[in-house]
Amino acid sequence: MASSRNPEIRKDRILNRSVIFSPARARRPSDFKSKSPANPNPNSSKECPFCIGHEHECAPEIFRLPKDTSDWKVRVIENLYPALKRDSKIIENEEENPKYDSNVVVTGFGFHDVVIESPVHSIHLSDLSPSEIGDVLIAYKQRIQQLHLHQSIQYVQVFKNHGASAGASMSHSHSQIMGLPIVPPTVSSRIISMKEYFHETGKCGLCQVRSEELLIDESTHFFSVVPFAASFAFEIWIIPRDHSTHFHALDNEKAVDLGHLLKLMLLKLSRQLNDPPFNFMFHTSPKDMEASQFPYMHWFLQIAPQLSGVGGFEIGTGCYINPVFPEDAAMVLREVNVVQ
Amino acid sequence: MASSRNPEIRKDRILNRSVIFSPARARRPSDFKSKSPANPNPNSSKECPFCIGHEHECAPEIFRLPKDTSDWKVRVIENLYPALKRDSKIIENEEENPKYDSNVVVTGFGFHDVVIESPVHSIHLSDLSPSEIGDVLIAYKQRIQQLHLHQSIQYVQVFKNHGASAGASMSHSHSQIMGLPIVPPTVSSRIISMKEYFHETGKCGLCQVRSEELLIDESTHFFSVVPFAASFAFEIWIIPRDHSTHFHALDNEKAVDLGHLLKLMLLKLSRQLNDPPFNFMFHTSPKDMEASQFPYMHWFLQIAPQLSGVGGFEIGTGCYINPVFPEDAAMVLREVNVVQ
Repeated sequence: MASSRNPEIRKDRILNRSVIFSPARARRPSDFKSKSPANPNPNSSKECPFCIGHEHECAPEIFRLPKDTSDWKVRVIENLYPALKRDSKIIENEEENPKYDSNVVVTGFGFHDVVIESPVHSIHLSDLSPSEIGDVLIAYKQRIQQLHLHQSIQYVQVFKNHGASAGASMSHSHSQIMGLPIVPPTVSSRIISMKEYFHETGKCGLCQVRSEELLIDESTHFFSVVPFAASFAFEIWIIPRDHSTHFHALDNEKAVDLGHLLKLMLLKLSRQLNDPPFNFMFHTSPKDMEASQFPYMHWFLQIAPQLSGVGGFEIGTGCYINPVFPEDAAMVLREVNVVQ
Repeated sequence: MASSRNPEIRKDRILNRSVIFSPARARRPSDFKSKSPANPNPNSSKECPFCIGHEHECAPEIFRLPKDTSDWKVRVIENLYPALKRDSKIIENEEENPKYDSNVVVTGFGFHDVVIESPVHSIHLSDLSPSEIGDVLIAYKQRIQQLHLHQSIQYVQVFKNHGASAGASMSHSHSQIMGLPIVPPTVSSRIISMKEYFHETGKCGLCQVRSEELLIDESTHFFSVVPFAASFAFEIWIIPRDHSTHFHALDNEKAVDLGHLLKLMLLKLSRQLNDPPFNFMFHTSPKDMEASQFPYMHWFLQIAPQLSGVGGFEIGTGCYINPVFPEDAAMVLREVNVVQ
C-alpha cells in the first residue's frame, strides 16, 4: 500500500518540525520490527541498586510512594551522575565569566532525578496496572511541584529511556526528571509555533490533531494519535481531551485514566514492533505560564519508538526521514490486539 | 582536570543551540574512546556495488571524475533508495490536498545522490591524499551547481555517515547529496541567529569562533576549532578564513587545501577516539542568498563524532549533554600526533 505513494514533506504545526515521509521499498507498514529488542535478557537483580532492599546503594532519596513504608511502590531519588548540579551557584555570566560573550553561558545549576517505577527488577512500566502507572505519574507531578518552588527553575522535563539504544544505562524500569534554569529550545519553538497557529485559526493546534485517520484510541480524559508529521516511525502522542496547560494539574482520577491509555499504547508498540527501544517525553509549559494568559498551550505526551538511528542528513537539516506514513501507522496500531 | 569543573549551559550563537556541559565523573577528556569502531571488519568487495567494475549494479551515474574514463576516481550516482524523488510533481498542496491545513504539505520532489569517494573498497576518505579529497569536494561542488539549475531546489545538503551507528548502510566510503525543495529548519534557524549576532555586534559570528583556546589547527585558507557550544564530544568545525557565503564557490586550490585540513582532522579523531563513527555536514547558504545582501552568512563544515546516542532529554528539550568541555577537547586534539 504505502510503497506506491510518493514521498511528502510535512510540517508539524505543534513542534515546528519538518519531516520527509518516504515509504520504504517493498516493505509494508505492518512489517516494521525492532532488530534489537530493548531488554532481551534483563540482568540479574543481584547487582541492581534500584531493586527493593538495595536502597542504600543509591543516591539520596527525595520521596517514596506510599510515604514512610519499606514496602514502597515508587521511589524518587537523586541521579548519581547528574547532568546538572543542585548545589551549583547560579551565575548568569557577564562579570564572572568575562571571557565569554554576554548572555551565552549559564552555570549548570539544576536538578536531575530518577523515578524508580517499580520495586521489582523484571517489571516494566507496561506490566503495571493502570492505577500503579497512575502512581508513577503522580510521583512526576509531586516532584515537578517541588522543583517549581525553586525560583531559578524555569522548565521541568520528564522523560523515559527504555532500552540501551534509546539511551537507558540501567535495565530496571525508571524515568528521569530534570529541573532546568532555562526554557529549552524545543519548548520556545513550540510556544511560538502554537501561538502562531492560534492567532491564524483561533484554535488550539493540539485539539486539531485529532482526526479519524490518525486516531488510535481514547479513554475518558485522553486520546492517542499518530501525529500528522511524526518524526519517528509509529510515534504516538497522548493528549488530554480538555485544554490543560500544565501536566502537573493532573488529578488522581486522570492519572489512572492516563495510566490506562499509556499502558495500552506501550503494549501495542511492544507487540507490533517486537519490544522496541523507545523514549517518552512530557511536553508541558514553562513554570510561569498561567493558563488564562496562554490559551494556546496544551500539554501532551510523546512516545517515540527508536527503530533506526539518525545520520548526517537529520543533524544537518533538522528534518527527519520517516518511512511510515502516519495514517498507515495509526491503522496498524488501531488493529493490534493486546491482552491487558 | 575537567572533572572538577561545575556544569555549564552554553548557547551557540551560530546554530542557535543550547548545550549542557557536564564533565563525566572520573573520566579525563583524553580517556574518551569509541566502543564500537566504525569499520572493524570491512566486508568483502565481492558483493559491493560501489567498487570499480560493479558500476552496472548501481543506480544510474550522474557523472564521474575524471570524465569519460573507466579508471575513475570519484563517481556521483543516484541513490537506489532515494528519500526524495526527482520525478515527483511539485504540488504545493491546497487544492490538491484539500484535506490538510494549508501550507503544511509539499510533495516530496527532490534529489538524493551518492558520491562514491574512491574506486577501492577498503580506502576511507582519510586514506586519500589532500588532492584526492579535493576531487571529492569538487564533485560535491559540481553536483550542487547542477542541482541549483532546478527552479524548485532551495537548499542542497551534503553529508557523510561513517559507521553503522552514524547511519551508514554501506561500508564502501561514500557521502550523500540531497537537493531539497525547502529551506530546512536548522538553516532557517541559523540564518536568524547569525543575522541577530551581526546586527548586535557588527561582526560575523563565524569569524568570532576562532580563539586560542578552541583552535585546533589551520591551513592556508581554513582553520579548525572545537565550537564553543559543541553538541557532540570532540565535535570539530572547519571554517574558511575569508568570508564565503556558499561552499560551492570553492576553487580547485582551496579544495586541495581543505582536503589537507579535513584529512588531518579525520586522522586525529580516528587516532584519538579509536576510529569512531562520525557524521559530517556542510552548512552552506540557500541557493538564492546573494553574498552581497547577506554579509552575515559564512559556510562551514561540521564533523560530529558519535560516541554516545541521544535519549529522551535531547529529543524532549533540543538540548544536548556533552561530557567534554570544548577547551579540553581542543587541547587534546591539538596534541594528537598523526603521520600523514
